[in-house]
Amino acid sequence: MAAPKQYQFQYTEFWQGRTGLSFGVERILFNRQSAYQQVQVLQTDAFGRVLTLDGLVMLTERDEFVYHEMICHPALCLLPHPRRVLIVGGGDGGTLREVLRYAEIEQVDLVEIDEVVIEAARTCFPELSRAFDDPRARLHVADGAAFVREAAPATYDLIIVDSTDPVKFAEGLFGESFYRDCARLLREDGMLVTQSESPFDQTFQASIQAAHAMLGRLFSQVHMYLAHIPTYPMGLWSFMLASKRLHPVDDFDSEQAARRLAPFANRLRYYNVELHRAAFALPSFVRRLFADARSRPAHPESLHSNDIG
Amino acid sequence: MAAPKQYQFQYTEFWQGRTGLSFGVERILFNRQSAYQQVQVLQTDAFGRVLTLDGLVMLTERDEFVYHEMICHPALCLLPHPRRVLIVGGGDGGTLREVLRYAEIEQVDLVEIDEVVIEAARTCFPELSRAFDDPRARLHVADGAAFVREAAPATYDLIIVDSTDPVKFAEGLFGESFYRDCARLLREDGMLVTQSESPFDQTFQASIQAAHAMLGRLFSQVHMYLAHIPTYPMGLWSFMLASKRLHPVDDFDSEQAARRLAPFANRLRYYNVELHRAAFALPSFVRRLFADARSRPAHPESLHSNDIG
Repeated sequence: MAAPKQYQFQYTEFWQGRTGLSFGVERILFNRQSAYQQVQVLQTDAFGRVLTLDGLVMLTERDEFVYHEMICHPALCLLPHPRRVLIVGGGDGGTLREVLRYAEIEQVDLVEIDEVVIEAARTCFPELSRAFDDPRARLHVADGAAFVREAAPATYDLIIVDSTDPVKFAEGLFGESFYRDCARLLREDGMLVTQSESPFDQTFQASIQAAHAMLGRLFSQVHMYLAHIPTYPMGLWSFMLASKRLHPVDDFDSEQAARRLAPFANRLRYYNVELHRAAFALPSFVRRLFADARSRPAHPESLHSNDIG
Repeated sequence: MAAPKQYQFQYTEFWQGRTGLSFGVERILFNRQSAYQQVQVLQTDAFGRVLTLDGLVMLTERDEFVYHEMICHPALCLLPHPRRVLIVGGGDGGTLREVLRYAEIEQVDLVEIDEVVIEAARTCFPELSRAFDDPRARLHVADGAAFVREAAPATYDLIIVDSTDPVKFAEGLFGESFYRDCARLLREDGMLVTQSESPFDQTFQASIQAAHAMLGRLFSQVHMYLAHIPTYPMGLWSFMLASKRLHPVDDFDSEQAARRLAPFANRLRYYNVELHRAAFALPSFVRRLFADARSRPAHPESLHSNDIG
């Protein structure tokens, strides 16, 4: 008879006060203080291996598919001819893996500031980090904000901001000058996707409204979409899609998307063509975040930003 | 200066192993062992008052709106002329409150087995339990399975099963004979809605498949839909809508629904007309639960059940 599993300790990511998600931890697989943050990988009971940065859950073996599919596929299925993609952050390789599923993608630049994150993924998440071995992937260990400041204009079809929360060294990835650099790097039909925290979390509602207003001054379309990620605070996660031309729902061509997905649709576990439209339909309390922002604009030009949902 | 809040203890609902949602608890407001279960109300730091039954979170002040809106409004906006509704369980009054928002509803029977739940709601959740004071509400403290066995046929337009998990005394609310009694009680266009646990939780995947197959033998349409409920296990919750005639998406009349909702749409915080269709679009891993069930039917007639999503 197998011995019962031994737990070293219970680890809790506090979302607010003493409320948060607790994990039973069997072992610590990786534990390193980098120049930027504490990088840990925990072996947990219910979610498998869990990567944390400064104690915040970045991904778990069991539910990473939701985040990584949803940060990529809505934009990639919407773009008519995506060829070149920039990922800012995403040093674990999960977002890269999803982008590289498309045979028509020719090059992906990935800019990760912290090489210890890449090392943790190489050690503990080979099913994510093996994406770095694809010859189309180019890894840059550098600051994302500096990278986009210096890159050549009209280079990318899609920029994906796969960052941590807008605090400390990642704060520069949520400001207007960063978004302006991104807009300059994008081709004519280009799009930017950024993770934008949980709209259920009152701490981040103001920064969600601010990001939406800033992007609305730079792109003709700005829309939020949602996904269920059990191990992220409140389980409800948002992304912002900013697009130079195409509307993410009205201009979505289901048949083109289905053809694009066909070679690997059976390997996707969350995203599908029907879910694309559904992800942009927002609960009323989320819609009101933007209605409120529109009725009291900090700058009159934020009225140019398009409706949400 | 205000003194810092005092926490009595941290309360965790374990979802699997030692993984689960933890709450900082300031006070215990209600604590009674009924004939059926331990009924507690906790004052928590991040979710306000929380009702637990046998240690499982049933509702919280902060996110109860999602569950209560989503168990009612999709069916009520789909039905052409809903007049009479049966709620099985739901002793807190939250589901009743949502049903009674519609002026055209003439009578709601609510059958709750445990009067201590009603008392806890009366004491700690007046914004839910005041629905019992509406003259259209009829409260029956009784066993739901017995009630549906004895009620007159073709009485209700909608039956809502607002129960705890399918264990102990609530197990009878998830079996085929219960569903058959419900089908008999429903009028020609009638519908049944039941909460059906989290599809992310492997413990309940088999019971979700079983419920879908059973309902498929009794109703012409059986469809799952989803909602984000942060304090329920995995944060992703499912409902099953079984309908005698109408398809919940193809037969959904957005304009009729918008007219129906107009008098109280600004008081809803989750459901809206666009979200209706979106809730029925399922992530790929959820769709496959039903594809697998269909490809290996326990009974050939389960093939009659309609596609999902």
